[in-house]
Amino acid sequence: MVVGPHSFSSRHLLGIRNLSEQDIEFLLNRAEKAVEVSRRPDKKTSSLRGRTQINLFFEASTRTQASFELAGKRLGADVMNMSVAASSVKKGETLIDTAMTLNAMRPDILVIRHGSSGAADLLAQKVDCAVVNAGDGQHEHPTQALLDALTIRRHKGRLQGLTVAICGDVLHSRVARSDIFLLGKMGARIRLVGPSTLMPAGVEEFGVEVFHRLEDGIANADVVMMLRLQRERMAGAFVPSEREYFRYFGLDTKKLAFAKDDAIVMHPGPMNRGVEIASLMADAPQSVIEEQVEMGVAVRMAVLELLAAPSHNEEGAT
Amino acid sequence: MVVGPHSFSSRHLLGIRNLSEQDIEFLLNRAEKAVEVSRRPDKKTSSLRGRTQINLFFEASTRTQASFELAGKRLGADVMNMSVAASSVKKGETLIDTAMTLNAMRPDILVIRHGSSGAADLLAQKVDCAVVNAGDGQHEHPTQALLDALTIRRHKGRLQGLTVAICGDVLHSRVARSDIFLLGKMGARIRLVGPSTLMPAGVEEFGVEVFHRLEDGIANADVVMMLRLQRERMAGAFVPSEREYFRYFGLDTKKLAFAKDDAIVMHPGPMNRGVEIASLMADAPQSVIEEQVEMGVAVRMAVLELLAAPSHNEEGAT
Amino acid sequence: MVVGPHSFSSRHLLGIRNLSEQDIEFLLNRAEKAVEVSRRPDKKTSSLRGRTQINLFFEASTRTQASFELAGKRLGADVMNMSVAASSVKKGETLIDTAMTLNAMRPDILVIRHGSSGAADLLAQKVDCAVVNAGDGQHEHPTQALLDALTIRRHKGRLQGLTVAICGDVLHSRVARSDIFLLGKMGARIRLVGPSTLMPAGVEEFGVEVFHRLEDGIANADVVMMLRLQRERMAGAFVPSEREYFRYFGLDTKKLAFAKDDAIVMHPGPMNRGVEIASLMADAPQSVIEEQVEMGVAVRMAVLELLAAPSHNEEGAT
Repeated sequence: MVVGPHSFSSRHLLGIRNLSEQDIEFLLNRAEKAVEVSRRPDKKTSSLRGRTQINLFFEASTRTQASFELAGKRLGADVMNMSVAASSVKKGETLIDTAMTLNAMRPDILVIRHGSSGAADLLAQKVDCAVVNAGDGQHEHPTQALLDALTIRRHKGRLQGLTVAICGDVLHSRVARSDIFLLGKMGARIRLVGPSTLMPAGVEEFGVEVFHRLEDGIANADVVMMLRLQRERMAGAFVPSEREYFRYFGLDTKKLAFAKDDAIVMHPGPMNRGVEIASLMADAPQSVIEEQVEMGVAVRMAVLELLAAPSHNEEGAT
Repeated sequence: MVVGPHSFSSRHLLGIRNLSEQDIEFLLNRAEKAVEVSRRPDKKTSSLRGRTQINLFFEASTRTQASFELAGKRLGADVMNMSVAASSVKKGETLIDTAMTLNAMRPDILVIRHGSSGAADLLAQKVDCAVVNAGDGQHEHPTQALLDALTIRRHKGRLQGLTVAICGDVLHSRVARSDIFLLGKMGARIRLVGPSTLMPAGVEEFGVEVFHRLEDGIANADVVMMLRLQRERMAGAFVPSEREYFRYFGLDTKKLAFAKDDAIVMHPGPMNRGVEIASLMADAPQSVIEEQVEMGVAVRMAVLELLAAPSHNEEGAT
Repeated sequence: MVVGPHSFSSRHLLGIRNLSEQDIEFLLNRAEKAVEVSRRPDKKTSSLRGRTQINLFFEASTRTQASFELAGKRLGADVMNMSVAASSVKKGETLIDTAMTLNAMRPDILVIRHGSSGAADLLAQKVDCAVVNAGDGQHEHPTQALLDALTIRRHKGRLQGLTVAICGDVLHSRVARSDIFLLGKMGARIRLVGPSTLMPAGVEEFGVEVFHRLEDGIANADVVMMLRLQRERMAGAFVPSEREYFRYFGLDTKKLAFAKDDAIVMHPGPMNRGVEIASLMADAPQSVIEEQVEMGVAVRMAVLELLAAPSHNEEGAT
């Protein structure tokens, strides 16, 4: 892949919130090209040859880390994984000390996942290299939003004017936040659907509609995006029973009938089959869940290349 | 290594049982060439340049995973390890969801180890890429059988007509199963030796002879293959004391005297020294245990190259 | 980097103790060149193309392992990490069996960290490849001493004649041991500073001065090197309270005033901020702690290249 002229405004990818419509368009277009690369028998390019990418994961995430690892390797980068068990670290201090240690090893890109909102931003202020946020607390998960957008655009031809229903545990979902920012910027109509206990207060100010009944929320939707029920983030208070939750908020073919005939079904994974989505639904023709995974590698290749390929780096950090 | 014409009949390597004599011969001959590559100072080839190999291990196995990792890297593939802790996964569902997620990342080869017999076959039906079975439950472990065969052939010049005694915990051993299939196909005479509690019922139907006294079983054998005593797979019932087991079924120089003078001693590792094999015996000149490890890398290089090198892949999965 | 003629006397790097002044000088000079490589956008060389490096860590050490991994990858080697949990292994036997298994896979370099003093030496007697000691028990940690020396030399222009104060938990520190050997050989004056309970008996025979008051020990020092308080190695007996320890032996700007005006402050990491070093001190302009990390990668590149680059390996192990 050749690095052409572009308008991307930042050295980092910390969130969707500060990206322009042009930035997003630009990234999606580049990701389209990366899709083709990963479908070739020889998936290797030399865009990032000699560059060092460190995946610094303070929260375990097999699939996201794998996606970044393959993306970097296919671009020719040297990729190193660092999994830091939350239990073995002291809070606060560790993130920065670990980051500064890695920074001193002169990476070109630091991909970070961390349990605290704002961790990626903090890091970006400290280190010399490009930082990619792979999920920070309940804040943002920008590459997930980009891969969602790419998947939708490939199926619907556009984002503008679509009705997208984001359903389930919105409260604990950084995926939902990043999707709301991205789809909002691109002119989609966004509906949030879920029990009031799993809906963030004041979310309407982001220009979304809120529904508390799944059938109402997905009525005539073009895209039905189910979220993972994150019981591990629910401290005591409200933890719904799986059966009860599935009855009202689990997507099955019967409920999906309320959406448009050609609606697509999405899920960021890993799924709780039988909780937020019926197992048959997950494997149905309307489901584009596996395609999301494929687009994930492509989007990450686009992001990594954009932030670390030669033409940028040459004038970059010393 | 150049990929020449061959008769290998499958896109996958799931077990020995369905391979033809020609397939086995072909693989062993190619592995011979790979031995030379790993003995060079520059061990790198470009056969699998740009190919993606994922090692998906649901059971920990340092040595087998290392062997596949080095084999892939020496062929120029991008290799990614995924260790999935059995404790953190729900049964059944996980294998397939994990596999489909990885499949969507467009690997060329998936190497899988799993605690359930049949896991590799199941996977092969679902994914688009080549699957290599690195051990599934008590079913098969084909690359181990191939490396055993290669080691024997290098020492004895042939497999046909040899007397091979497979000794110890046959019941829990997928290695024994794959070895029985392979050596049987190639015309060796196979003896199984062990206490009746560690011998599968009806095993004679595979055309083997069964012995319950080690001295009898290895009498005049060309090859004495000791198996690891897998106490971790023995639930309550019969767990022999180590001392008792060693007394009757542990190989030492005294017992080895019953075998042919030029008999070789094998073990798939990791060894329980002083349990199934005396420590001195493991390090004696008759032992080819380390050579087995070296042949392991070579055999895996041959398998990976055969299943994923350009000439095959070009017409492969889309 | 081109491999030129040199006087390095060993196939392995097991410790500083047996290196000559010329060996050390030679390694430091080569490391200077490696610093430049890691500062380039394209950090990749082909010195170790096709070579296999295995990092065999019996003790967890994120930063040291990362440093060796990046060093090997930047030289073009295939790098494989093996973390062996101490809990899952039987003592004694395992180190050798694991090592011989890996040796049979034909690596060119084995980097080993182990909890027992002498582990690296033992390994070097058994395997065919080059062995690099990445820390063995309370014995040696030679690459740490080399990176310390390189950092000092870059700031002071020399090692000869400098006064270096090594402060804190000297008793449990292999870093201190290797530093004492190296700095002693190179003509620095070494002072050890710490409570008598954390000072090895008879250490004066290494030609060092011992102090029990931090202010006295660092008076007029050119270099103040703080050690990590290794409470995990202190069995019951004397475990100082953090507050008490910091009061007497923690470095802060007030205590540092006793050293030379242009003294530099070092720490091998990871730091216990507020225990052996004040947090502000760690981030002060006198601190060269991050530079030590950068020099760590460079020193390891120099060592790996020296031990495994083509010109050496060609006549090497079969």
